[in-house]
Amino acid sequence: MTDLFIPVILGTARPGRRSASVAAHVVDSIKQRGVRTDLIDVADFDLTATHGPSVDLGGYRAVMSEADGLVIVAPEYNHGYPGELKLLLDSEYEAYARKPVGIVGVSVGRLGGARMVEQLQLVATALRMVPVAPTLLVPDVEHALDPQGRFTDPYLGEVAEAMLGEVEWYAEALRTARAKGS
Amino acid sequence: MTDLFIPVILGTARPGRRSASVAAHVVDSIKQRGVRTDLIDVADFDLTATHGPSVDLGGYRAVMSEADGLVIVAPEYNHGYPGELKLLLDSEYEAYARKPVGIVGVSVGRLGGARMVEQLQLVATALRMVPVAPTLLVPDVEHALDPQGRFTDPYLGEVAEAMLGEVEWYAEALRTARAKGS
Amino acid sequence: MTDLFIPVILGTARPGRRSASVAAHVVDSIKQRGVRTDLIDVADFDLTATHGPSVDLGGYRAVMSEADGLVIVAPEYNHGYPGELKLLLDSEYEAYARKPVGIVGVSVGRLGGARMVEQLQLVATALRMVPVAPTLLVPDVEHALDPQGRFTDPYLGEVAEAMLGEVEWYAEALRTARAKGS
Amino acid sequence: MTDLFIPVILGTARPGRRSASVAAHVVDSIKQRGVRTDLIDVADFDLTATHGPSVDLGGYRAVMSEADGLVIVAPEYNHGYPGELKLLLDSEYEAYARKPVGIVGVSVGRLGGARMVEQLQLVATALRMVPVAPTLLVPDVEHALDPQGRFTDPYLGEVAEAMLGEVEWYAEALRTARAKGS
Repeated sequence: MTDLFIPVILGTARPGRRSASVAAHVVDSIKQRGVRTDLIDVADFDLTATHGPSVDLGGYRAVMSEADGLVIVAPEYNHGYPGELKLLLDSEYEAYARKPVGIVGVSVGRLGGARMVEQLQLVATALRMVPVAPTLLVPDVEHALDPQGRFTDPYLGEVAEAMLGEVEWYAEALRTARAKGS
Repeated sequence: MTDLFIPVILGTARPGRRSASVAAHVVDSIKQRGVRTDLIDVADFDLTATHGPSVDLGGYRAVMSEADGLVIVAPEYNHGYPGELKLLLDSEYEAYARKPVGIVGVSVGRLGGARMVEQLQLVATALRMVPVAPTLLVPDVEHALDPQGRFTDPYLGEVAEAMLGEVEWYAEALRTARAKGS
Repeated sequence: MTDLFIPVILGTARPGRRSASVAAHVVDSIKQRGVRTDLIDVADFDLTATHGPSVDLGGYRAVMSEADGLVIVAPEYNHGYPGELKLLLDSEYEAYARKPVGIVGVSVGRLGGARMVEQLQLVATALRMVPVAPTLLVPDVEHALDPQGRFTDPYLGEVAEAMLGEVEWYAEALRTARAKGS
Repeated sequence: MTDLFIPVILGTARPGRRSASVAAHVVDSIKQRGVRTDLIDVADFDLTATHGPSVDLGGYRAVMSEADGLVIVAPEYNHGYPGELKLLLDSEYEAYARKPVGIVGVSVGRLGGARMVEQLQLVATALRMVPVAPTLLVPDVEHALDPQGRFTDPYLGEVAEAMLGEVEWYAEALRTARAKGS
């Protein structure tokens, strides 16, 4: 249908991370929409200090350069984003420009990472990405998915589709405009 | 050249507001780029309480609906945005979607409203606008403009043009995509 | 018991504001803890433009100067604070310093104003107040209070008490230290 | 004079980090004020993934438990805080409560990390610390210090002293109150 490429970053490497199942679900959802995707796991990178955009961490730059848009799935720690996610994001700069990002917040509590999402939106804007609305907030992550890996709360499924639709809309619009040059 | 319409909101009604001269300069800059614009002054609206998007405040909705993008010029008060600006922004919702916004921060101090800009970007994202990078930060506003109304610091002039270029790029890209539907 | 004075600001003047009932409940809760309080309603002030800390708006400065701490109850509009609340807060500066503030977010949706609370905490810090944890987030405000004006969700009642306890702790600690001078 | 203990966290491990000289200067300034301090360098910890507050990273918990207050010196990367700093902060929770934190932002550009400071203040508030005003923003870090390690801009020296004074004021006030119990 479309030949967009929209990878998903799993933004936590913490042992026992529950965001992994949400990220897997988002990857599946993107595939079912006929869009190419891939899971980028922060745990696969050697992240002990920020390097800035001068070092290519294990192919991350190549994937970001090819991407037409991005989804980030991450938990909230103390109202902010996980450090390992920021280390990964800060390792690149040019490849993000004029591409949309859908942000998925995850928490064991009631809010689904709403505060983290706000901070991450500002980082995304600084990286010249377009943070789309709606964002997807997944509270009570331990009970968020059924055994088939779908959201137990249908509302979350609706928001997820709306978010992915918006990411695709921007991915298409901005890719077309980037191709025209200027 | 282009038939874009990019109005400028002056986001303070405080007596003695110095942001007015910066807003006037931005209006001129947009005109010189061959783009249609208009100054929307928060002081022209009756803003005593938030009304939500159910009331059309003196033609504001019509202007926002027609706009292809937006520039907001506002000072920073206590790290946040002026209340009157928020009252005006909150009076509308639908008309903002999928349109870019360039944010211009103004201060008498050294930072040019950098903290206010961050908060306003989050409001813009919630309103489904695209806050573009770079933003323009105007410190020491009392000495920012020469008698001809141009920035005394050439760097600010360069950033202003870069910001306006980015607003136009998004305005064009997103208008084209909106016209295609979906 | 204690002679602390902790007024409550109702931070919205929007017609039909549902935060009013939450603010009333907070006022009652403070009284039942044996602490003196008062309701400060933004709707009682003439707020059409920010004035800065040079104008005393109808006794607001006097109340803030006497206060040992503060609670703010406000809804979230487009992820930010109501404009009228910001207008009121910006009308004063000196009187806030080294005093705690408990923030209560209100929404008709699921999050109870969590994003607004973050932005307001930054304004509070700029005003040299101490934003305490926990904050109280009241989602689904239409069903938040029972006919007796108590939270239908006991968890919210517990958080409210924890927040008020923390405001009182800081109010006492900082008043004592301010009295010592330096 | 006083027996306060106020350690300084150097919040970047990036090669060539220029914040190190600022952190060294802050350590010196604290010592000259007669207050005990210590440099905590994020580069000294093994930070590859967030662990949450269940793991004591090389004595960090012990230092934080003993501390009466804290200063954090960190650069701004893409408007946010360094990932390695967040990893360190998230490794602890209880030890921070009711203690002040002075935040020092560093940048090679004009703003001195003002946006990072805002995000970090929200994390600090979530950790139940008191982020004090003023914060110290160090722009153009390459020319910020003279050969003797003092700020070339006297204004920065004044702000640094004001910030440290406020951290000490809160450290004393809150330690006294914590000792009283409740």
